[in-house]
Amino acid sequence: MQALVNKIYLDHKDSISEGDKASYIPALANIPDNLGLAVRDHSSIYTAGDTTFRFTFQSLSKIILLLVALEDNSTDYIFNHVGMESSGDSFNSISKLDFTNIIKPYNPFINAGAILIASLIKGSNYTEKLKKIMVLCEKIFERNDIGFNDEIYLSERNSAYRNRALAYLLKEKDILEGDVEEILDLYFKCCSIEVNCVDLANLGYFLSFNKNSIIKDNHLRIVKALMLTCGMYDYSGEFAVKIGLPSKSGVSGGIVTCVPQRMGIGVFSPRLDSKGNSILGIRCIEELNVALDLNIFR
Amino acid sequence: MQALVNKIYLDHKDSISEGDKASYIPALANIPDNLGLAVRDHSSIYTAGDTTFRFTFQSLSKIILLLVALEDNSTDYIFNHVGMESSGDSFNSISKLDFTNIIKPYNPFINAGAILIASLIKGSNYTEKLKKIMVLCEKIFERNDIGFNDEIYLSERNSAYRNRALAYLLKEKDILEGDVEEILDLYFKCCSIEVNCVDLANLGYFLSFNKNSIIKDNHLRIVKALMLTCGMYDYSGEFAVKIGLPSKSGVSGGIVTCVPQRMGIGVFSPRLDSKGNSILGIRCIEELNVALDLNIFR
Amino acid sequence: MQALVNKIYLDHKDSISEGDKASYIPALANIPDNLGLAVRDHSSIYTAGDTTFRFTFQSLSKIILLLVALEDNSTDYIFNHVGMESSGDSFNSISKLDFTNIIKPYNPFINAGAILIASLIKGSNYTEKLKKIMVLCEKIFERNDIGFNDEIYLSERNSAYRNRALAYLLKEKDILEGDVEEILDLYFKCCSIEVNCVDLANLGYFLSFNKNSIIKDNHLRIVKALMLTCGMYDYSGEFAVKIGLPSKSGVSGGIVTCVPQRMGIGVFSPRLDSKGNSILGIRCIEELNVALDLNIFR
Amino acid sequence: MQALVNKIYLDHKDSISEGDKASYIPALANIPDNLGLAVRDHSSIYTAGDTTFRFTFQSLSKIILLLVALEDNSTDYIFNHVGMESSGDSFNSISKLDFTNIIKPYNPFINAGAILIASLIKGSNYTEKLKKIMVLCEKIFERNDIGFNDEIYLSERNSAYRNRALAYLLKEKDILEGDVEEILDLYFKCCSIEVNCVDLANLGYFLSFNKNSIIKDNHLRIVKALMLTCGMYDYSGEFAVKIGLPSKSGVSGGIVTCVPQRMGIGVFSPRLDSKGNSILGIRCIEELNVALDLNIFR
Repeated sequence: MQALVNKIYLDHKDSISEGDKASYIPALANIPDNLGLAVRDHSSIYTAGDTTFRFTFQSLSKIILLLVALEDNSTDYIFNHVGMESSGDSFNSISKLDFTNIIKPYNPFINAGAILIASLIKGSNYTEKLKKIMVLCEKIFERNDIGFNDEIYLSERNSAYRNRALAYLLKEKDILEGDVEEILDLYFKCCSIEVNCVDLANLGYFLSFNKNSIIKDNHLRIVKALMLTCGMYDYSGEFAVKIGLPSKSGVSGGIVTCVPQRMGIGVFSPRLDSKGNSILGIRCIEELNVALDLNIFR
Repeated sequence: MQALVNKIYLDHKDSISEGDKASYIPALANIPDNLGLAVRDHSSIYTAGDTTFRFTFQSLSKIILLLVALEDNSTDYIFNHVGMESSGDSFNSISKLDFTNIIKPYNPFINAGAILIASLIKGSNYTEKLKKIMVLCEKIFERNDIGFNDEIYLSERNSAYRNRALAYLLKEKDILEGDVEEILDLYFKCCSIEVNCVDLANLGYFLSFNKNSIIKDNHLRIVKALMLTCGMYDYSGEFAVKIGLPSKSGVSGGIVTCVPQRMGIGVFSPRLDSKGNSILGIRCIEELNVALDLNIFR
Repeated sequence: MQALVNKIYLDHKDSISEGDKASYIPALANIPDNLGLAVRDHSSIYTAGDTTFRFTFQSLSKIILLLVALEDNSTDYIFNHVGMESSGDSFNSISKLDFTNIIKPYNPFINAGAILIASLIKGSNYTEKLKKIMVLCEKIFERNDIGFNDEIYLSERNSAYRNRALAYLLKEKDILEGDVEEILDLYFKCCSIEVNCVDLANLGYFLSFNKNSIIKDNHLRIVKALMLTCGMYDYSGEFAVKIGLPSKSGVSGGIVTCVPQRMGIGVFSPRLDSKGNSILGIRCIEELNVALDLNIFR
Repeated sequence: MQALVNKIYLDHKDSISEGDKASYIPALANIPDNLGLAVRDHSSIYTAGDTTFRFTFQSLSKIILLLVALEDNSTDYIFNHVGMESSGDSFNSISKLDFTNIIKPYNPFINAGAILIASLIKGSNYTEKLKKIMVLCEKIFERNDIGFNDEIYLSERNSAYRNRALAYLLKEKDILEGDVEEILDLYFKCCSIEVNCVDLANLGYFLSFNKNSIIKDNHLRIVKALMLTCGMYDYSGEFAVKIGLPSKSGVSGGIVTCVPQRMGIGVFSPRLDSKGNSILGIRCIEELNVALDLNIFR
C-alpha cells in the first residue's frame, strides 16, 4: 500500500500548478501549490507528499457539524429542518429557497443547510457549542491541538454577504432559530479549523469504521449516504458514477473519502476545477480506486 | 428467506388501498389494487403475493434504454449528451433546460434525459432499435414473450404534450438528432412493455451480478450509481439515506432494487406517494433491508 | 367634480370589509376598515370619506426615495445600479437576483431596487439623508408636520428578514455601498411616514404638474413611466390595460394616481386583493376613469 | 415635418452597418443594410430613406393577431387565456410556463402568448382565419397586395423547435385548443407577411386614431397599453422611461410607434442591439421624440 501511495504521489506531484485556487477570500488564494496524500486502513496509515501542511476545513466541516447535530437531536427533527436531496444547483445557491413551496434547504452540505445544521447544535452558549465540535475533532483526528486560522475566519466573517443573505432568508421562512450572527459565527469558526491530509484520512477512516463507537452507527450511514449523493458539489453525481465512494470536498483543496469497512483517504492540493473540487485530489482518488477496485457499486 | 418474504407480504397486503394511483392517463388509474414481491439471490427466487400481474414498465424502462445506449456508444459520447447529476427538480421538469448555460439534461432518468438516451440507440430503423431493446429484456427476464400494452402506448403517445415539449427543446439546443416523433415513439413503446415483479427481481439480480456478462461491468456500475443518486424521483436522496440501495421506480407502481453482489428485489403495488413512488413498494424494501442489513453505506 | 367624488365614495363605502389586510406585521392588520378619496386638479381639491386618517407610506415611499436619488445623482448613475424593467415576479422576490447574469435589481419599485435607491441618496450622515426626504415630503404634501409611525417602524426593522437577505445579496453583488443596517433603517423609516389620502392626491398632482418646479421635469417623467410599468406590483400590466394611468400602491392600502397635466388622485382603504393592491382603491380609480375618460392610451 | 424626417434620416444613414442582424434563420441574416423612416399624421405621410424595401412582419404581426382575436372574442375570454403582465424574461422564454402556478403566458407579445392568441382567432378552417388577418392588414396598410415571404415562412416552420416546445407546453396546460401544427402554421405565416416602413407608419397611425373605426376603441387601447409595457422585448421598461410611446419591434428590424391622437411612426433598419431591437430604429424615434416632445408621460 505504501508503494502505491508513493506511486500515486509521484504520478501527480508535477501537476500541482494546474487549475486555479479559490479566490473569494485573498487568504485562500495565497495557499502554496502543494500535494499531500494519506490512506488509513486497519493496519496502518500510509502517506506521501506534504502531509503536515495545514489548510482550513471549509466545507469539510459540514460533516462534523452534521455529526454533532445528529447526536444532539432526533433524526426526524434534523430532517424536518433540512432535506436529504441533491439540489441540482451550486452549493451557495439562494434561488430555490425563494420558492414558497421549498420550505427547507435541500441538504446539509449546501451552505444554507449547513448554517441551519449549525443552529441545531445544542449548548447553553456559543463557547459550549464550539467546544463540542472541537472535542469531536480531537477524537477523530487523534490529537489535542485543534486550532483555527484567524485570518481566514475574520476574512469570511466580514465578507460573507451571501451566507448572511441565506441565513436571513431561512429566518424569514421561520426555520432558523436563534441569533443569525452567532450562528454564522459558529459556522465560520468551524470552516477555519486547521487540518492536514492525515486528519482527513483519519476522518474518512472514522466514518468507515466508527472507531470506538463514539457516534451512532446510523448517523455515520446517513453522513456517508449524503456524501455520496451531495458531497462533491455539482460533481457529486459524476463522482458517484466514476469513483463510487462517499466523499466530501472543501474549497481550500481537501477531499475526504470513505471506503466503507475498508479505509479512509485524505488528499490535499489547493488548485480546483470548475466545480470547486481539488483537481489532483480527484485524480489521486481515481488512481487509488482503479488500483484497488474500491467502488461500492461493483 | 422465503419465510421473510412471506412475512413482509403479510405485513403490508392489507394496506393496498392506501394512497393514490397515477392518473395522468386513464389506463394507469384502472390498475387493480395489488401487491407482489419477489427476491432473487444466487440460490433461488422467493415470491409472495400477486407475482404474475403484468403492469407497464414506464420509467423502469429507462434502465434498459441506458444499458442499450451504453453498449452502442462510448461512455464519453453518452455523457456528452446527458449529465450524471441529480436535478433537484421533478422528473418531467422543463425549466432548467431553458437556461442557456444548461446544455444537456441533468441525467438519464429524468424524461428529457431518457428521450435523449433513446435517440442514441443505434439501428438502421425503428424496428431494429426496438428489437435490440426487446432482446435485452428477453435475456434479463429469461422469457421470450415480451409484450406491450397497446392501450397505454397509444394513450401516452396521444397525450404526451410535455414530453413533446421536452423533445423539441432538446432539438432546439441541437443535442437531439433524428426525427422527434420516431424517438418519442420508441420511448413510449418501451414504457409500455409489460412486466411482473419477478421480471423486476430478475432485472435487479442482473444488475447486481451481470449474469452471463452480456453487458460490460462498467456499464452496470454506471447504472447502479445513477439509480442510487437519481432513481427514486425527488425522493432519491432520502431513499439513499434510509435504505442505501440502488433502486428505480416507475409510475405504474413497480420498484427494482439491487443489492450489489447479493440479490435483486422486485416489488409491485400501484398506489403512489406524493413523490410518485409505490407506497408499499418502499415499505417492503425497507422491511427487507432492516431484516437483512443490506445498506451499502454500512 | 365634488359630486362625482361623493358618488364614488357612496358607491363603495359599504364594501370596506371585503378582502384581507396586510398581515406581515401585526400593526398593519389592526388598521380599521376605512375609505377615503381625494382628487386634486388646477382649481381645487375634492374629498370624500375619511380623509384625515393617517396610514403609513410603505411602498409609496419608493416614489419619494427615487425622486431624491434622481436629484442627487445623474440618471445614468442611478440606472447603472437599478434597472427599468418590470420583473414579472413579486415585489419582494429574491430568486432572480441569484442568477449571475442579473447584475442589478429589475426596477426601483421592487424592494431590492428601493433599498439600492435609498443607498444612493447623498448626505454626510443618516439624519441628513432622512431630512432631505422629509423636506421633499413637506413640499409635496404642503404641510410641515411630517411624522412617523414608530410602532410600525420598529416592527418592520425587527422582522424584515427578507429585506435583510435582499440587502446582503446586493452587497455580495457589489452594487450596494455603505452599511446595510443604516440603509435598511432609512428605508424602513420612510416606509413608516404617516400620510392621509389628501397627501396622496397632492403627490399625484405634484407628479402630474411639477408644481413650483422643485424636481426636474425629466425626473418626473421617469417616475411616471415606472409607475405605469411597475407601480401596481404583479397587477401593473393589467392596471395599465384597464385604467391606463401611472399609479403606485402601498401595502397599507393607499394608491396614488397621476393624470398627466390634469390631476392627482389619492385613495385609501386597507383591505387588499391577492396582488397586494387596495380593493376599493382600484374600484374608485376605475369609476373615476370611466366617468372622466382619463386613460392615457386613448 | 418633412424636413425633420429628412434630417433624422441623414443623421443616421451612415450607421446602417452598426450591430448585428438576426441570425436564427439564414434568410434574416441576408437582409441588406438599410434605413427607412415614415411618419404619418392627419395631414400627410412623410418619408425618407428606403421606404419601399419589404421585410417580414415577424413579431409586429402579434399586434394584428391580437386585434383580430380581440374582435373575435370577449376581452375576458382573451385574458383568461393570456395575461397582461410583462414577463421579466426574454420573449421566447419557456421556464416560467413550467411552474405549476403559472397557468397562462404572461402577455400576448411573448411567443407563447402570441401562439395562444393565434389559436383564438375564429374561422371554420385555416384559410378563413388567414384571410381575416390579411383583410385587416389590407385595411390598415391601405393596399390590396399583401404577400408572404415563402423562404422565411418555410425556414421558420422547419426550424422553430422552441416555438413547438412552447405550443406543446401550452397544450399540456390545457389552455391551447386545436391542432398544434395548424396553429403554429398560422403564426409562422403571419410572421412572414411582407411590409415596408410606410405600412408600419400606417399601422401606428391606425392604432393612434382608429381610422374608419374598424376596430373597437377599447381594443386599440388594450393594444397600446401592452405595446408600452411589453412591446420592445426586455427593453420595454427602459423604452417607456426614455421615449414614453407605445411601440412594438420585430426581429427583422422594423419598429412601429404610436403617438396617441397625433401620429404613427414606422422605421426599418435590420441591425439589432442585444435586446433584439433595431438600433437605428430606436435612434430615429428618439430624435423625433426629442424634436417634437411626444412622450405621453409629460
